[in-house]
Amino acid sequence: MTKQATTSIATSTADDVFVRGKSLTKDLIGKLTFTQMAFFQITGHAPTAGQTAVVDACLVTLMEHGLTPSAIAARLVYSSAPEAMQGAVAAGLLGVGSVFVGTVEGCAALLARIAASSDVSKEARVIAEEHRSAKLPLPGFGHPQHKPDDPRTPRLLAVAEEHGVAARYVSALRSLAVAVDQVFGKHVTINATGAVAAVLGDCGVPAEAMRGFALLARCAGLVGHIHEEQQRPTLRAMWEASDGAVPYDGST
Amino acid sequence: MTKQATTSIATSTADDVFVRGKSLTKDLIGKLTFTQMAFFQITGHAPTAGQTAVVDACLVTLMEHGLTPSAIAARLVYSSAPEAMQGAVAAGLLGVGSVFVGTVEGCAALLARIAASSDVSKEARVIAEEHRSAKLPLPGFGHPQHKPDDPRTPRLLAVAEEHGVAARYVSALRSLAVAVDQVFGKHVTINATGAVAAVLGDCGVPAEAMRGFALLARCAGLVGHIHEEQQRPTLRAMWEASDGAVPYDGST
Amino acid sequence: MTKQATTSIATSTADDVFVRGKSLTKDLIGKLTFTQMAFFQITGHAPTAGQTAVVDACLVTLMEHGLTPSAIAARLVYSSAPEAMQGAVAAGLLGVGSVFVGTVEGCAALLARIAASSDVSKEARVIAEEHRSAKLPLPGFGHPQHKPDDPRTPRLLAVAEEHGVAARYVSALRSLAVAVDQVFGKHVTINATGAVAAVLGDCGVPAEAMRGFALLARCAGLVGHIHEEQQRPTLRAMWEASDGAVPYDGST
Amino acid sequence: MTKQATTSIATSTADDVFVRGKSLTKDLIGKLTFTQMAFFQITGHAPTAGQTAVVDACLVTLMEHGLTPSAIAARLVYSSAPEAMQGAVAAGLLGVGSVFVGTVEGCAALLARIAASSDVSKEARVIAEEHRSAKLPLPGFGHPQHKPDDPRTPRLLAVAEEHGVAARYVSALRSLAVAVDQVFGKHVTINATGAVAAVLGDCGVPAEAMRGFALLARCAGLVGHIHEEQQRPTLRAMWEASDGAVPYDGST
Repeated sequence: MTKQATTSIATSTADDVFVRGKSLTKDLIGKLTFTQMAFFQITGHAPTAGQTAVVDACLVTLMEHGLTPSAIAARLVYSSAPEAMQGAVAAGLLGVGSVFVGTVEGCAALLARIAASSDVSKEARVIAEEHRSAKLPLPGFGHPQHKPDDPRTPRLLAVAEEHGVAARYVSALRSLAVAVDQVFGKHVTINATGAVAAVLGDCGVPAEAMRGFALLARCAGLVGHIHEEQQRPTLRAMWEASDGAVPYDGST
Repeated sequence: MTKQATTSIATSTADDVFVRGKSLTKDLIGKLTFTQMAFFQITGHAPTAGQTAVVDACLVTLMEHGLTPSAIAARLVYSSAPEAMQGAVAAGLLGVGSVFVGTVEGCAALLARIAASSDVSKEARVIAEEHRSAKLPLPGFGHPQHKPDDPRTPRLLAVAEEHGVAARYVSALRSLAVAVDQVFGKHVTINATGAVAAVLGDCGVPAEAMRGFALLARCAGLVGHIHEEQQRPTLRAMWEASDGAVPYDGST
Repeated sequence: MTKQATTSIATSTADDVFVRGKSLTKDLIGKLTFTQMAFFQITGHAPTAGQTAVVDACLVTLMEHGLTPSAIAARLVYSSAPEAMQGAVAAGLLGVGSVFVGTVEGCAALLARIAASSDVSKEARVIAEEHRSAKLPLPGFGHPQHKPDDPRTPRLLAVAEEHGVAARYVSALRSLAVAVDQVFGKHVTINATGAVAAVLGDCGVPAEAMRGFALLARCAGLVGHIHEEQQRPTLRAMWEASDGAVPYDGST
Repeated sequence: MTKQATTSIATSTADDVFVRGKSLTKDLIGKLTFTQMAFFQITGHAPTAGQTAVVDACLVTLMEHGLTPSAIAARLVYSSAPEAMQGAVAAGLLGVGSVFVGTVEGCAALLARIAASSDVSKEARVIAEEHRSAKLPLPGFGHPQHKPDDPRTPRLLAVAEEHGVAARYVSALRSLAVAVDQVFGKHVTINATGAVAAVLGDCGVPAEAMRGFALLARCAGLVGHIHEEQQRPTLRAMWEASDGAVPYDGST
């Protein structure tokens, strides 16, 4: 009846460490790639070769997006506190929230609903109509810049198909895309987060863990930005670009 | 003469994204693993097959250490603010600081000094003696639990040697280990962070970017802990284990 | 048509700084307390003497709660990264989320609904019944340890009444408490977060800014814990108390 | 021989909470201001009236500085993850590091050295000469915008003198200022962080806790910026101002 916190992920002895029952030195180091180990660490299952390829493709897709709010925040914090790179990475990851990656989870929930339905096309149409009538954004669809289509989407879906991973989530996404175009009366692109939701879902990643994969990818992206900041500091430029104090106008 | 912040990492157009000059959709997604892409993102160079294997081995080594302070902090924060997984990961990464990964950078600096010396054995001995006389901990050496030797070290060095990556940093580490045993008059293990410093150094990773690789690995580890917390919440147990208020004794 | 970020909070010249139109050196330093300045900074209005007393009482109430998850996370991070106290405070604040302070906002929303109603008692009863039938926790009510009543609640309400600040939010809270006892058929305490929601509401603090006041208070609490950790490190004890690795059982 | 984590700051019973031996409901709520409570929480001592006035003046001084990197980071993160205000505040505080507040601690260390010396003027001159010959920045001196003098400095020193708090740290700062002007052959202003270091030192705040007071002040400043962002979102403007991707030039 211990009240102690416990984990079943790892244990260690004097001469080895065990992660989910596997010897770190004998079974994992030199045997698994980062992506295989991360999948094993998070889900508890070693991925197949196809799942590994799909997860790698998702992580590569999500890693770098230029000077996003998250990257700017990381670089600003690094410039103010270079003694602690971890603080800069943490600040950047704090910006990987509902606006940018919440859509992955939101889309995954819709795809699960469609995949569980006995009439996939009908359920897809119901979802599209619900969002249209409530004027709600449809997670996984639309992109301000990539028109008419987000170029990352067909690549991700192709990787999933080539490796035999594409299954009911990808089918659900395709059904939903057809329904969206019909219901909205125009073509709306499936964006990269929609594709990620579908292919990670078909890899068996639970919706509530998907944000974790986005955080991994962005973590690497942020380290790249911080290293660029180490080599070419741009803080002053950013700060000056934003030094937009305006006279107080009396309002709050 | 723009004051604007700039990055040379990524640009995008309506139908593609370019990372360091490569097309995301044509050259990267489905072509690179996470580790290859992260190395490219951070250092600007595509890694060789050998460098990829070595970086994978380092990331696998550093990913999971059980209920470390960092993992506990992440799980506590997740339990208090489950609306924001990114906050829990950020809190955990904030604990990846000087005590736990600063030793990678400290060891890399010593190895660089040895590697740059005309008399490697002599420089290694000077360093060992400096630390012994000043009673300073020697970064990359010693481990409270893994005695007489940290089992991860020979595996990491073996991976570097098998793939032809081991070079002057690994040699410097071996020279330093010999000097340490002689100067301290007993066997002191090279620990995993010492081995990581050497093999990443021989992959061409700059010392100031090494903490970034540790953060990547730990990020995946933390997502695993948070997902375990989602499935089996242990907050109450941890909190009760720590509910150690003692009567105020009047001191500060 | 600037795209530049702007703020109307502060501007500065060579010989002064202006915050919301007031001279920092002539009007604010030495004239305002922290609480008055923070209220002015956040809401744009200088508080009355009564509002100041009430906000002070709320901040004093929320500052310190012993070894909460937030305080433990901050201390663990400080011990791992003592080079950056800001990282430890940040980690602790990341635990001030929906579970612990979200109830302030949730309660404030209910009180606003009651206060806006033409029949306060009826609306209070409707809310109590809604929560009872849906088996939802009622934000601002109940406490695991402080039974039958949270001792902080009557003090906070008394401070608000002594200073003539208590108005429609406090009345709404009292009506809701009567309704809750009737509908649930037993006495349920108003907890401290319920009282804070009511008295801050009567100070004119918008519901979406209330979490900000909780963060201020907890920030001071966390600095106290970190300073105690500087003087009496307890990391090892905490870590060992939590070193609860259990053999891997094959599940995820 | 418990290994359990402990704190001597707070304990609680069913009908009260005790902070450093004082009853929260009887002795603290409604009796202490935030500043008095924070000083008590952090240092373990209730401040005198004069110390309270001086700490209030420091907190008011440090609270708001316009669109600093820290404020921009907080606003960017809020815009990306509005579900978690605590993440935005945490991101902003992560930028309160060595560059911006490390100087408070650095200056306090120099003032302690002067105050402990038997010949104050001589020690001040030694310190000024050390920094000049090593071309090191002198913490607490100089300001890019506030020339010839930082207007906050005389106000803070005046508050400390009016309340009888100014003592050996303030004297040390004045001696150092005289020495700096002589040694550098020109007038260099004492900046606000130098003044804060001196007056907090004379309040008995240990150098290692001073960053904590800066974090409190900035926390309130950040909540103000986040609330402004809630009311007038400026993310898009900031992001566009910073959308400075330049063609990849082949370097790293």
